[in-house]
Amino acid sequence: MVTLNDIEAAANRIASAVHPTPLLESTALSRRSAFRLLVKAESLQATGSFKIRGAYNFVDQLSPEERRGGLVAFSSGNHAQAVAAVAARFSVQCTIVMPKDAPVAKIEGTRSHGAEIVFYHREREDREIIARRIALERGAAIVPPFDDPRIIAGQGTVGLEIAEECRKFGVVPDVVLVPCSGGGLVAGIATALAAKSPATKIYAVEPAGFDDTARSLADGEPRTNAPGASSLCDALMVSAPGKITFPINRKLLAGAVTVTDDEVARAMRVAFAEFRLVAEPSGAAALAAALSGKIGLSGCTVVVVLSGGNVDAPLFARITADAL
Amino acid sequence: MVTLNDIEAAANRIASAVHPTPLLESTALSRRSAFRLLVKAESLQATGSFKIRGAYNFVDQLSPEERRGGLVAFSSGNHAQAVAAVAARFSVQCTIVMPKDAPVAKIEGTRSHGAEIVFYHREREDREIIARRIALERGAAIVPPFDDPRIIAGQGTVGLEIAEECRKFGVVPDVVLVPCSGGGLVAGIATALAAKSPATKIYAVEPAGFDDTARSLADGEPRTNAPGASSLCDALMVSAPGKITFPINRKLLAGAVTVTDDEVARAMRVAFAEFRLVAEPSGAAALAAALSGKIGLSGCTVVVVLSGGNVDAPLFARITADAL
Repeated sequence: MVTLNDIEAAANRIASAVHPTPLLESTALSRRSAFRLLVKAESLQATGSFKIRGAYNFVDQLSPEERRGGLVAFSSGNHAQAVAAVAARFSVQCTIVMPKDAPVAKIEGTRSHGAEIVFYHREREDREIIARRIALERGAAIVPPFDDPRIIAGQGTVGLEIAEECRKFGVVPDVVLVPCSGGGLVAGIATALAAKSPATKIYAVEPAGFDDTARSLADGEPRTNAPGASSLCDALMVSAPGKITFPINRKLLAGAVTVTDDEVARAMRVAFAEFRLVAEPSGAAALAAALSGKIGLSGCTVVVVLSGGNVDAPLFARITADAL
Repeated sequence: MVTLNDIEAAANRIASAVHPTPLLESTALSRRSAFRLLVKAESLQATGSFKIRGAYNFVDQLSPEERRGGLVAFSSGNHAQAVAAVAARFSVQCTIVMPKDAPVAKIEGTRSHGAEIVFYHREREDREIIARRIALERGAAIVPPFDDPRIIAGQGTVGLEIAEECRKFGVVPDVVLVPCSGGGLVAGIATALAAKSPATKIYAVEPAGFDDTARSLADGEPRTNAPGASSLCDALMVSAPGKITFPINRKLLAGAVTVTDDEVARAMRVAFAEFRLVAEPSGAAALAAALSGKIGLSGCTVVVVLSGGNVDAPLFARITADAL
């Protein structure tokens, strides 16, 4: 469904809007850990997360006629900001359907790119239905958050960069850990690395209560999360794996790991103190998994994708000011 | 005293210990500003500041005999961590003379590389005398913080990277703003850019109460700060310009700017919210100058060096959780 060629084509397509992000190491942290830890800092990407890679790759492939009526997306905030920034670049209107309880940083970030925001209630309303109605009324194109080959190929460019940076470091990563919501990012990275670094094992990381991919992988078919759960990881609260992402992930992933809010908070403190990176909770999930001891990593070279850094200052302050 | 050749040689010498840091832009911030703002994120450098560039370039040029007795440095914390990390790399002992009131993050960072710390009182004791005594007792080499051609050449590699990254962006920077304590970083950057980007104006940025370089440039000869001042910028509290750095800066700088603690705090919030970067107060000084309106930047492309990110979590939390 998505090939290395698609991902390499995406890398060329998005090069003007997206910059490669650094792979960072804390030698002090690696020295006192049982494994070598490298952090792929997608929090430093334009709009503060990896999401602009897929959004730009999707929108760039629409025809001018398809783009003319503007763009619509539903998102808790990172895809929202990415689509808003892409719309600004193509000089078309943008409407984002966002949950009322989205982080203020994500709402303001989305507005800063000139998008209109329509709020919905996470549990009482269906954001996809609202988005489809707006798209129909305005003749606008919906930019899907994950379940589309163009989105997956765009996110897969993170995998190409990991392979290239690791080559510069002179290492082959044994394990790559990736935060997982609908599974677009991990599916794209797994596709890229299956070709570029076939010995590398890829794991999806999900927050407790939203472990649909872990249970789906274990059962071999898609499983849905029970409603009503909550998580610090506002960007990873999806209900089920994607129809396109899951078959890719079932084929290519070594497994999935679940992390608690406490583990995520600790990872945010490590990102701050050891890497001077601002991680949002969802962005720190893979780092949390690496530090949790839930996967055997002894002696390994481990890459964690720090997928985003859009977090409200008061929450970040409350979490980082805690003792480690 | 320091040439482009010295800086290019330093770049080759330090390449195994130091990685190029990204030049980041917030398109949303640039769009609502009167100038284009690019941030050189040296907070992402190994040990969390630019200081490892100069320290490694200095120590690598010592003979094995000179290194054998270990390294000594006096520093409020960034040079300390850099020298400690370099000592660990060369497998030699390291003693750091640090002020009692240094940030905990800097003390712990220094210890994490295995260095011994000797504390002194910032106002009652002379750190250079203590360091010289230790060096004499132990047969150790002092790694000076700024006033040495090898240190200046090492810090100047930041200037080479700025020139190269700007070429990739397709821009020539009109203005580069650099935090200034003893003046080693700005002298090195100014030397590199005088050769690589001669149309660029370079400014030193100092905290209020420690504007020795500004007054020295204005008077054409070195001026000393009155004792007793305090500043949020713990890494920029020097008493006078260097004997080697000042003549370079007098010749090459367009001027100097002074920033207040409030301006620095605001810049830390902008670094957090717009760039997802952890800046320490001293590291945010140049960003503070750019945002302050104290220099006419309208229509310019401006590079600010965010020189370090070693800040205690409680202070960072207190500053970033304030409204902008």
